[in-house]
Amino acid sequence: MLRERLEQMLAANPQELHTIFDGAMPADLADALASLTDDELLALIPNISPAMLATVVQEFDEAQAVRLLNLISTDQAVQLITEMSADDAVDMLQWLTDDLRTRIVQALPADSPLHELLEYAEESSGAIMTTEFLTVRPEWNVDKALKVIRAGAEQAETIYYTYVVDRRGRLVGVLSLRELVLAQATALVSSIMRTNVIKVTDDENQEQVAAIFRRYDLMALPVVDEHGVLKGIVTSDDILDVVDEEATEDIQLMAAMQPSDTPYLHTSVFKLAKQRFGWLLILMISATFTGQIMRHFEDFLAQLVYLTVFIPMLMDTGGNAGSQSSTLIIRGLALGEIQSKDWWKIVRKELLVSALVGFGLATVNFGRVLLVERYPANVALVVSLTLAVTVMLAKIVGSCLPILAQLVNIDPAIMAGPLITTIVDALVLLAYFSIAGAILGL
Amino acid sequence: MLRERLEQMLAANPQELHTIFDGAMPADLADALASLTDDELLALIPNISPAMLATVVQEFDEAQAVRLLNLISTDQAVQLITEMSADDAVDMLQWLTDDLRTRIVQALPADSPLHELLEYAEESSGAIMTTEFLTVRPEWNVDKALKVIRAGAEQAETIYYTYVVDRRGRLVGVLSLRELVLAQATALVSSIMRTNVIKVTDDENQEQVAAIFRRYDLMALPVVDEHGVLKGIVTSDDILDVVDEEATEDIQLMAAMQPSDTPYLHTSVFKLAKQRFGWLLILMISATFTGQIMRHFEDFLAQLVYLTVFIPMLMDTGGNAGSQSSTLIIRGLALGEIQSKDWWKIVRKELLVSALVGFGLATVNFGRVLLVERYPANVALVVSLTLAVTVMLAKIVGSCLPILAQLVNIDPAIMAGPLITTIVDALVLLAYFSIAGAILGL
Repeated sequence: MLRERLEQMLAANPQELHTIFDGAMPADLADALASLTDDELLALIPNISPAMLATVVQEFDEAQAVRLLNLISTDQAVQLITEMSADDAVDMLQWLTDDLRTRIVQALPADSPLHELLEYAEESSGAIMTTEFLTVRPEWNVDKALKVIRAGAEQAETIYYTYVVDRRGRLVGVLSLRELVLAQATALVSSIMRTNVIKVTDDENQEQVAAIFRRYDLMALPVVDEHGVLKGIVTSDDILDVVDEEATEDIQLMAAMQPSDTPYLHTSVFKLAKQRFGWLLILMISATFTGQIMRHFEDFLAQLVYLTVFIPMLMDTGGNAGSQSSTLIIRGLALGEIQSKDWWKIVRKELLVSALVGFGLATVNFGRVLLVERYPANVALVVSLTLAVTVMLAKIVGSCLPILAQLVNIDPAIMAGPLITTIVDALVLLAYFSIAGAILGL
Repeated sequence: MLRERLEQMLAANPQELHTIFDGAMPADLADALASLTDDELLALIPNISPAMLATVVQEFDEAQAVRLLNLISTDQAVQLITEMSADDAVDMLQWLTDDLRTRIVQALPADSPLHELLEYAEESSGAIMTTEFLTVRPEWNVDKALKVIRAGAEQAETIYYTYVVDRRGRLVGVLSLRELVLAQATALVSSIMRTNVIKVTDDENQEQVAAIFRRYDLMALPVVDEHGVLKGIVTSDDILDVVDEEATEDIQLMAAMQPSDTPYLHTSVFKLAKQRFGWLLILMISATFTGQIMRHFEDFLAQLVYLTVFIPMLMDTGGNAGSQSSTLIIRGLALGEIQSKDWWKIVRKELLVSALVGFGLATVNFGRVLLVERYPANVALVVSLTLAVTVMLAKIVGSCLPILAQLVNIDPAIMAGPLITTIVDALVLLAYFSIAGAILGL
């Protein structure tokens, strides 16, 4: 609908396009703009001010941004990028090919804060912060502070926190707009500011920044360099993106994929295949160890082919039991609810849980194999005992590996289902053949 | 450290405890309080004002809150709950046993907004909203509006948005504090307010609320009843919790568990076992179908026992390939990046990806079985062809099932790895025995 209105206005009265932009939300306009043809887009751009266009374009996703910036001139790109929020501008520049990015960055004004922001490592607080913040000085009074805020409000990302810096730009305090509005006009900023400011350094990982937002229910967090100089702020809407991104990354790693934050429908077939091939290959080759175990027991199996019938059920149940534990631990570590020093509490808990679950399942299984599938009792016993042992082994392995990974600074999410399954498979078969050998006397 | 300071002050000079509360962050104080003994807690409470204590206690997690509210008197509980943010108070009350909750709720003042809030369904916008918001009237001028905001600011959850309501309480507009501060004192609220307000009804699911925050980068979202009357607001810090909770739920469902948002270390062994047993049982019983297939081919297997050696590798690779696809689709659906109407695009994409990945893996596998494991070429061909077919089947099943679930209003996360694995196992075996039969001529 918005798209149709844009098209009509573009055809009939392009200089009035801004009236549509005025009344609609940037995210909705972004969708409408993305669905226009190249020619329509090019016709629209000169009729909208760069500032107005920037509020919409900064909502674009990777594919949409890349298309637009390849379409317009370098001059237009520079105008647009300069008007955008610094954090969105940095994201967008990083999506471009090196060639196009270099061309635009070289054309940016020398004093643009983007030059510095682009230096920060991906996923650092410096890379997600924005530089549009307001500062006041501790020696000012409230009246002067409010005047400065009024004057700068249009440009700032948030005016709900005002940061107090000394003459060297070092962060010394913070004031909420609420506190300023409620204070006496003559009070000194230094007398009403809070001095225990929660802040992060500019090289902090974004996951850690999200943890601080979670813990302290913040709306904005100041970012300082190693000298304590205020460099930028991270706002809560950026953190929502970080939290989504980190959960997506973990979920993808847990399903044995190289993580990627490009939306599925905008990712090429080749990139999707590449993202999945590596882990599948590693896991396929690991699974051949399981094959080696079976090969070792081939003569044994030849005598008792009916035992193979239970192998899929045992392997699947083991894999699932292990995934349950590893998933809980991985998520707990990611949210900071579990620390690696808790490992002993976790192992003890998993032993108890797995004993309950394992023997519960084994009991049901014993009845089923004996009464429904009508195997002899000793076979039912072998399968059910193996099942109980499997569940216990799987849960111990599943809970310990993510903690071990954390201790040696590997992302615990790698130790999820697929890897656990491969390890548990081998353990299951060894347990199965040992128990069968002992009970069936082979 | 904070804990030690609390203990010392409690022993030496309990009436000065508030000085510690003044200087520290609520989340840090909450941790310190939670680590005190019952006696210390009971000694501390009368020395801190209910309002001050409430800001700390509302940071408690389930286990900590349940302990405290069982410890203190009903009167103390009512005082504390009344001072808390309404959304945190509702959460806390819902953690209690029916008995204790009823006792506290009956002792609450009759005009407490909590009575109404407790009626909302869990995970609805009504259940996560807070009622501490400020309203102004369209016919007021900016000066009057600012005076009302100043007077009410202490009690409001956020003053950064001010909602404009008519005389029946219906939401007609919104103003940011920034806009008010920047406006002329004599301007009418109706002349500067935005009227296209993004809002939700009070029965909206919290997942949908999070999607709106994501899309529009909001800091607060108003909640209205079916008549358009403003009932509350949801703030960005609540949404961060919702996003974490929803991702945790999805991850747990994807690993075949009943979802629970209680932190792992605070969940009892029995509850953990219960959370995991049901799905494992269902999956174990489903996996016996795979056993039936093997039983059906028992004579065949007896002649070619060496074929069983490859079954774990084939099943694992199939399961992993299927999990990859289902995970990507489930996450895409959860973030709104994929809609079920895209199913054809997805199937086409997965066919291409799975062909690339499947034949890539099959090629590596053919070389390995032939050259490393030294099986005859026809065996290597059977295994590798099955592998390629497996990966393709697994990816199609893995991508279609979550979409199907969405279409019939089942949570797509249920259709993740474990269920896919069970289905794919059966398909793998059927493919394996058919291909082996055809090529090895049995």
